[in-house]
Amino acid sequence: MNGLRVAIVGATGLVGQEFIKILAQRNFPLKSLSLLASDRSAGKKLWFKEQELQVQETSSDSFNDVDLALFSAGAEISRHFSPIAAQKGVLVIDNSAAFRMETNVPLVVPEVNIEDAKDHHGIIANPNCSTIQMAVVLAPLNRVNPIKRVIVSTYQAVSGTGSAALEALTEQSRSVLDGQAVIPHVYPHQIAFNLLPEIDIFLDTGYTKEEWKMMVETRKIMHLPKLALSATCVRVPVFVGHSESVNIEFERPVSADDARVILAKAPGIRVLDDPTVSLYPHPWMVAGTDETYVGRIRQDSSHANGLNMWIVADNVRKGAALNAIQIAEEMLRYGWLRA
Amino acid sequence: MNGLRVAIVGATGLVGQEFIKILAQRNFPLKSLSLLASDRSAGKKLWFKEQELQVQETSSDSFNDVDLALFSAGAEISRHFSPIAAQKGVLVIDNSAAFRMETNVPLVVPEVNIEDAKDHHGIIANPNCSTIQMAVVLAPLNRVNPIKRVIVSTYQAVSGTGSAALEALTEQSRSVLDGQAVIPHVYPHQIAFNLLPEIDIFLDTGYTKEEWKMMVETRKIMHLPKLALSATCVRVPVFVGHSESVNIEFERPVSADDARVILAKAPGIRVLDDPTVSLYPHPWMVAGTDETYVGRIRQDSSHANGLNMWIVADNVRKGAALNAIQIAEEMLRYGWLRA
Repeated sequence: MNGLRVAIVGATGLVGQEFIKILAQRNFPLKSLSLLASDRSAGKKLWFKEQELQVQETSSDSFNDVDLALFSAGAEISRHFSPIAAQKGVLVIDNSAAFRMETNVPLVVPEVNIEDAKDHHGIIANPNCSTIQMAVVLAPLNRVNPIKRVIVSTYQAVSGTGSAALEALTEQSRSVLDGQAVIPHVYPHQIAFNLLPEIDIFLDTGYTKEEWKMMVETRKIMHLPKLALSATCVRVPVFVGHSESVNIEFERPVSADDARVILAKAPGIRVLDDPTVSLYPHPWMVAGTDETYVGRIRQDSSHANGLNMWIVADNVRKGAALNAIQIAEEMLRYGWLRA
Repeated sequence: MNGLRVAIVGATGLVGQEFIKILAQRNFPLKSLSLLASDRSAGKKLWFKEQELQVQETSSDSFNDVDLALFSAGAEISRHFSPIAAQKGVLVIDNSAAFRMETNVPLVVPEVNIEDAKDHHGIIANPNCSTIQMAVVLAPLNRVNPIKRVIVSTYQAVSGTGSAALEALTEQSRSVLDGQAVIPHVYPHQIAFNLLPEIDIFLDTGYTKEEWKMMVETRKIMHLPKLALSATCVRVPVFVGHSESVNIEFERPVSADDARVILAKAPGIRVLDDPTVSLYPHPWMVAGTDETYVGRIRQDSSHANGLNMWIVADNVRKGAALNAIQIAEEMLRYGWLRA
């Protein structure tokens, strides 16, 4: 049987389970699939197509007969096991922040910079969820009219935090609707019917690490080391789907119509933009789908060379699991990875 | 008894009821209070302190023995009854969008431009909710270092739409938690666990009227007719409290520390800004309070003269009813309105 021997590290997590689902949905060429997790989850059984697979504890030996390892078990696990796997000849695609900014690790959004994946040294990093969907949209515009500056405010779903956050939003929402007090957990304050402008830890600059990631990762992916970018990242009471209000300043003037034409032709993008019928993307409609959606495209009323737009994508799929699998698929297609 | 004869038009609405609550809470100097609404609501009884008052249908005669009329019954009612009331010598403070941009109607945020209220011709307009809280914060900064450009993305609570929207969010949230399908009403799409980048109608420019209001009203209130401003207004599944991610470009460089000092001394503002303990304003904590709250103040990483900040206020109070009553209080204090 032709196909890759694939291991999923963090298989019981939210992104891990999405890996399993997407491999099945896309009929990814598999020779074998091993599900790895912590000792706490070892022994659990998960379904892949009609097969029930048992979760194994991750160890160095887990990577002996593996071609491709998809990691989503946090930065610490990645830092420990990714180099071990890579040394055994496994291609690691890592969803954590552990290696993203290392110079010898490609940081890849297939629609933007798949060519960077070719020169890997065993580890390829999957970007941050809020970064991926913005890069998908910025790249085709930047090719036509260089981007000088980006100001973005995000509206990020709780699934970005993991399954405990989905439960927290559910439970807290019920409490509020029942008139009961909420004791915050997972987040420092209540998330139900609330917003928190805090994602990941705070840095000395006053930015959060999530905001910093959007800046440095976008620059790396787009090969624009000097791109001016400022981000404000906000957690919202939405289960799945990150939204972004993006203000873009170009080198030259650009019309909303031209941008719509460019984006409609670009890979991985669906333009949904007709105010007359309230057509624009919103997280509820986008959850469970693969594309990056753009709407509300309009001239920046504060700058002649500016545009505003609204970008929404499924953060668990395009923002994490799907992007990683698309990297592998493209590498197979180019022959940089062999089944 | 010394005091004003006050009428509330739209007394049974969300803002109308907040008017009643705030007049009581602040011990506003009242000689009499009449509650006016449509014929549908006439006869309803509402409490003011220990008094039960009966709602009357609004008619021209309703304004015969009135000094101050607080309007919040929509633009159409305002357009019809405000001039009638004004002609009878009543001071109208109108919460609708009907007269805000008329040149002979002052548009007032007391902390910013109370002096404009002096030259009224019977009608003073209360600005849009999302505009008020931003103007409160921009004004003291602009006095120290002129503002050149503002890019704002909002996170607006459903109470801005009225009480039907509060019910829709409650009901839709229950349906989602119970695994039932939601049939959208009030908004064109589901609002529970979702976001909608559509507030008020769409204009030909691709901006919504809410976004346009933030631009033109801010310019008028701040006496900055050429201020460059671009807004993206988004409805979020929050009951009360509008939040704003604001990027400000100044004429000269400004430090986050300096901005914090300026804002801490400015009227109507509370700075809540300590990342080390996750201290920043969020709508759940701000609902029911009077101040405009600012946090997440930091240098703009994309521009040397820029700052980012996060502004939150109770949209029903400071964004509507409270601001109108504060206008009247300040006018009493200056003797421009006599009890």
